[in-house]
Amino acid sequence: MKLTYSPASPFARKVRIAAIELGLIDKIEFVPASVTPGQPNDEYSRDISPLKKLPVLILDEGGVILDSYVIAEYLDELAGGGKLIPASGPARWRVKTDHSILQGMLDSMLLCRYEKMVRPKELHWSAWVDDHWQRAWNGMKTFEGRQDVLSGPFNIAQIALACVLGYADFRFADCGWRNSFPKLAAFNEKMLTRPSVRISVPPSA
Amino acid sequence: MKLTYSPASPFARKVRIAAIELGLIDKIEFVPASVTPGQPNDEYSRDISPLKKLPVLILDEGGVILDSYVIAEYLDELAGGGKLIPASGPARWRVKTDHSILQGMLDSMLLCRYEKMVRPKELHWSAWVDDHWQRAWNGMKTFEGRQDVLSGPFNIAQIALACVLGYADFRFADCGWRNSFPKLAAFNEKMLTRPSVRISVPPSA
Repeated sequence: MKLTYSPASPFARKVRIAAIELGLIDKIEFVPASVTPGQPNDEYSRDISPLKKLPVLILDEGGVILDSYVIAEYLDELAGGGKLIPASGPARWRVKTDHSILQGMLDSMLLCRYEKMVRPKELHWSAWVDDHWQRAWNGMKTFEGRQDVLSGPFNIAQIALACVLGYADFRFADCGWRNSFPKLAAFNEKMLTRPSVRISVPPSA
Repeated sequence: MKLTYSPASPFARKVRIAAIELGLIDKIEFVPASVTPGQPNDEYSRDISPLKKLPVLILDEGGVILDSYVIAEYLDELAGGGKLIPASGPARWRVKTDHSILQGMLDSMLLCRYEKMVRPKELHWSAWVDDHWQRAWNGMKTFEGRQDVLSGPFNIAQIALACVLGYADFRFADCGWRNSFPKLAAFNEKMLTRPSVRISVPPSA
C-alpha cells in the first residue's frame, strides 16, 4: 500500500502512529505530497482525491481509502479488528465521538493556520480565527476533564489527542496549552514515551 | 434521542434522511440550533459540542454522538446494522471512502459559503473560494463517472451525494451542475422520488 504523506500533517501523523502500533508500518510506502490551499495540484486532484487532501491510502489492488479516520479503521481491521477502536458497545461510540471532536479541532486549527500563513495579510478576519481557535481551545478544555480518555486504554482517540497537542506545539507554539491544561501536558508526556508517537513529532517549523 | 438541527445544514439533512429510511425518525426529537462562524454560542459549545457544529445526537441515557457520519452509523446499528453501510468487505471501504469524499465536498462548499456570506466583503480572497469550489466541482466530476454509485444500492454515499446536490441548488443555484453532469441530474431526480429526500430539501434561500 502507499500513503500520501507530509510530516507536517497531523492527519497523516495519526495514520502513521496507527500503522506503527498495529504492526503494519512495513506494508506502507510513504509518498510525499503537497496540497496547499490556493495552489492547484491537478495531478493529485485527478488521480488521488478531488478533495486535494492527505493522507490517502492507495491500495495495491487499485482504489483508494480516505479520510484519515477511515484509513485507521481499515488498518485496524487488517490487524484483526478492535485494536484501536472498540469493536462494539457504548465504548465504540464514545471513542468514535471523541475522535470526531478531535478531528474537528484539527480542522479548526488548520483553518487558523491557513488564515494566518496562506491568506494574504490584508484579507485576514480576526473573528474567523478567534472562532476556530476557540473551538480547538474549548476542545482541549473538554479533554482536560476527560480522565477516562487520558488514563484509559490506548486507542484512536488518544492518538488523535496526541496529534492535536503536537500540532499545537508545531504551529501555535506560544498558545500556552500546557499551563492551562496540566492534565493534557502529563498525558502528552506519557504518549511521547511510545516510539510511534515520538518518531512522528512534526519537524521544527 | 434529540438531534441538534437546522433545515439549512446538509449534514443534518443526511442524518434526517438516514433516520427516516431506517425507520427511526419517531425516536428523534429535532432541536433547532444556530452555529454561525464568527458568532459565539457559548451554551452550545459548553453543553453540546466544543466544535459548535451540528448535527449532534443527544442520547437519552446521557452523552452525545457526532459527527453526522458517526450518527448515521450509530442509527444504522440501532436498526440492525448493514442497512446504509455495508457490514464488511471491499464494499464497506468503498462506501466509507465515497462518503468521506462527499463529506469533504460539503466542507469545501460551506467554506465557500462562509467566505461569500459571512466574512466581510473587503476581506474576500478569491483564490480560497476558487480552490474549495474546485474541490466540490472535481468531486461532482468524479461521481458523474461512478455508475456503480449512481445506480447501485441505496446507502449512505447515495444519501450524501443527494445532500451535496441539494446544497448546490440551495446555496449555489447558478453553478450549472445539471448541465455539466447529466448523470448526477438523473440520479438526483431518482433520489427525489424518495419521501425522505423530498421532505428534507432545504427551504428556498
